[in-house]
Formats: sequence, structure tokens, C-alpha cells
Amino acid sequence: MSDEIAENGTANGDVPEIELIIKASTIDGRRKGACLFCQEYFMDLYLLAELKTISLKVTTVDMQKPPPDFRTNFEATHPPILIDNGLAILENEKIERHIMKSVPGGHNLFVQDKEVASLIENLYSKLKLVLVRKDEQKSAALRAHLARIDALLERRGTRFLTGDTMCCFDCELMPRLQHIRVAGKYFVDFEIPTSFRALWRYMYHMYQLDAFTQSCPADQDIINHYKLQQALKMKKHEELETPTFTTSIPVDVSEPHAD
Amino acid sequence: MSDEIAENGTANGDVPEIELIIKASTIDGRRKGACLFCQEYFMDLYLLAELKTISLKVTTVDMQKPPPDFRTNFEATHPPILIDNGLAILENEKIERHIMKSVPGGHNLFVQDKEVASLIENLYSKLKLVLVRKDEQKSAALRAHLARIDALLERRGTRFLTGDTMCCFDCELMPRLQHIRVAGKYFVDFEIPTSFRALWRYMYHMYQLDAFTQSCPADQDIINHYKLQQALKMKKHEELETPTFTTSIPVDVSEPHAD
Repeated sequence: MSDEIAENGTANGDVPEIELIIKASTIDGRRKGACLFCQEYFMDLYLLAELKTISLKVTTVDMQKPPPDFRTNFEATHPPILIDNGLAILENEKIERHIMKSVPGGHNLFVQDKEVASLIENLYSKLKLVLVRKDEQKSAALRAHLARIDALLERRGTRFLTGDTMCCFDCELMPRLQHIRVAGKYFVDFEIPTSFRALWRYMYHMYQLDAFTQSCPADQDIINHYKLQQALKMKKHEELETPTFTTSIPVDVSEPHAD
Repeated sequence: MSDEIAENGTANGDVPEIELIIKASTIDGRRKGACLFCQEYFMDLYLLAELKTISLKVTTVDMQKPPPDFRTNFEATHPPILIDNGLAILENEKIERHIMKSVPGGHNLFVQDKEVASLIENLYSKLKLVLVRKDEQKSAALRAHLARIDALLERRGTRFLTGDTMCCFDCELMPRLQHIRVAGKYFVDFEIPTSFRALWRYMYHMYQLDAFTQSCPADQDIINHYKLQQALKMKKHEELETPTFTTSIPVDVSEPHAD
């Protein structure tokens, strides 16, 4: 089903094997793609595999040419797809709930923290606005949001959002920070200010973690993800347009030979 | 083989039927595409069909999903393709030579005019440079070239490049002028100066001619043609790139908890 299979955790009969199907890179079908939810659940499950409560199998599927058995089983469903004991879970919210309720050790990841939950929930939509509008006002809104996250990290003084160990919020936030960093810089020269020291320290710790580095797409894949989105948007727009033909003339040139 | 078939000229046994296969629009496979050579030969043959020396059949092929019989016959060959009496001619230079030497009436289109031939031959490459480099120097070079064409038209005082009837040079030049006008304006805000009165008069006459209007792609198709070229260039570039991962940190944040 895939060219790239990462395994982690013990594969003996003591712990259940969980399979996560993720989207491949749109540049090279053998690489991991820049799918935020794929990376988020990859990180959640990687942490559980490190704790040896599960054995994790990650399968990469190239959606530009999905293998026949993938199409047979899942038709038009896109990854992430979680497979647990023969049961395929296709929707993001259900995957999250399944990890929390049914995957051994999962409940420990789902810390209750309303402040953090509401702080990070609209961050990503601000990046999308920056990439679409490309104006300084939207960049300033994104920067202000990052400043609030920086302030919380500074105030709490913990290594991660809710303490010194990772939780579901970290698995949600960090892939989005990486997209902001890489795509923001590439498309609109947006940079996370170096004055956000607590935020950079947070990212520094993330960059040391296997759960992040094993699941993280290449910069080029992040960039290409947004390029393709923009190209598709353009194409859709153009398909709806009535074709026009520029054949007007900006000057008076009528019948010069009749002069 | 096609959704759109345009026929022109008499279809009786007196004149040969020539089929020209052209590329479809990349936005809507039923429309004509922005292929310069397709339009050039379409115009040549349309003029001959108007003179009733041939009967012309134009077939549009959507290269994103070519019909099975097209793939069987021509494999990876792209239009334009000319079919005359069961013989398929695949290369542009051979199509041109075939129209000149073997298609009835064709030799009349191929006027000898060295001044015009050398005047128009490098015009299009200047548009490509403008679109790639996007700097004023390249725009100025394109404008200067158009000024020379304007000056020739002004000096000669003829409706078309070599006289008051169209010839092969007009069928070559006008599609390229239309690309310069539409894509130049869209991508780099390049405009043909209104002071080029003889050139605008020339375009005005072209816009009245069926040979041009029947063969001309929509503005959107011209624009999308260059957008796709740019996207493909980007993708090729990225496939060759070694994947990189931005995980460096611009500030010193090493082990703040050890302080």
C-alpha cells in the first residue's frame, strides 16, 4: 500500500497495533506530505508508541496515484485515516476521540486546559489570511496572536504548553507553527520575531523531539502544499469565468485607407 | 475524437479535406487552447478554405484527457497535427512546408519578404523574457521591437505586413501580438503604446477577420497557458531539490531551564 512504512514501539502481542495512513508529499510520493492533521495524529500516536502503550505503523499514501487497494477500501476519503483492529476511522474528530477514549494511554495526552485550548484554536486561520490577502494588517494579526502564545509560555515557564511533558495541544500547535514559519517566510516574507524568546525556546525543544522530527514534512513540501492550493483556487475561479476576448482598440484607427 | 469540430469550405469531392488537430483550452477542454502554432496554421488553412481551395476540419483535443484513439495514433505527440489524405504530419516545420508545397493554394500564402521575415522572427522570445524576468529593461526591449514593426507598417501603408491581403507572416505575427497584449497586461502590466498607431490599425483589421477571430483563444486561456508553464517550471525545480527541514533557531535559547 505504501513505499514508506515507519514502525515504532514493540510489535509483540502485548500492545495493540495502530495504523495511521498519512498523505504523501505532492513533490515526491515517497516522502511525508504537509498535512497538518496527519502530522498532529502522527505525533499523538508517536508519543504513545514511545510509552509502549501501542505499536505504531505509519503508511504514506500518494493521493496523486493511490494504490488500487486504497481506492477500493477508502474511495475518495483522504488521509489521515486511523486503523485500529480492523476498524478504519476516517474523520478527524472521530480519530481524535478514538485516540483519547480507546487507544491505550491516549487519555493522558488529552489534558484539560481551557486557556491553552482557546489560545491556539484560531492561529492557523490567521496564516491562511496572510497567504491570501498578503497585506501587513493580516501579518500584524498573526504576529499579535503569536505574541499571546509567547506570553503564555513565558508566564508559565514550562517546556511545553501545559507542563514539562507534551500533550495533545502541543501536537496541534507545533505543526502549525512550522507552516507559519516556512510558508509565511516563503510567500510573504513573514518572520516570527526573535523577541518572542519563549516561543522560540518552545520550538527549540520541539526540534529535539523525535515525535516532531519524524513526522515533519520537508520545507519544500510545506511550500508546495500552498502553491497547489493557490493553483487549484485559480483554476476553479477561471472555470467559472465566461471567456472573454480582448479585441477592442484603445485608439481611433477606423478605416485609415479611406482618408 | 473531439467535442468541438469546426468545418469550413465546401465538403464535396472537388477540393481536398485537410484536418488540423489543435490543443484544447487547459481551462475548458471544449474550447480552443492558447497554442501559437495551432492558431498560426489554423489561420493559414482558414484562408485557404475561404478561397475554397480546400475544405478544412478543425479538431480540438484536450491533452489532459486525450481520447483513446488519439493516444493510439499519436502517443505523446502534441498538436498541431495536420492530416491530409490519411497522412499525419506531426512537426511544425513539416506542417508549414506541407501547407506551402502540397496544400492547394498554399504557395500563395508564402510570400517572399526578407525584411518582414527577419523583423518578426524574434518578437515572441522577448515576451517570454518579459514574463520570466519581470523587469523594465526586458519590457523596453519588447516595446522597441514592436516600435520597429509599427514603423514598417506605417512606412508601407498596407493593411497587412506584405500588402493588402494576408500572408503567412500575418498568421505568424498576429497570434503572438495577442499573447503579448493579453499576457503582457495580465502578468507585468505591459501595454502596447497607443502611439503605435499603425500597429493598432493592423490589429484592428485583424480583429475584423474570421480567420483570426475563429482561431483565437479566450483571454483566460492565454493567461492560464502561462500560469501553467510557470507552475510546471516550479514543480520541476522542486523535484530536483534536496528536501530541507527548517529547524534552526535564530536566537540563543539553549537550556533555559538549566539556568
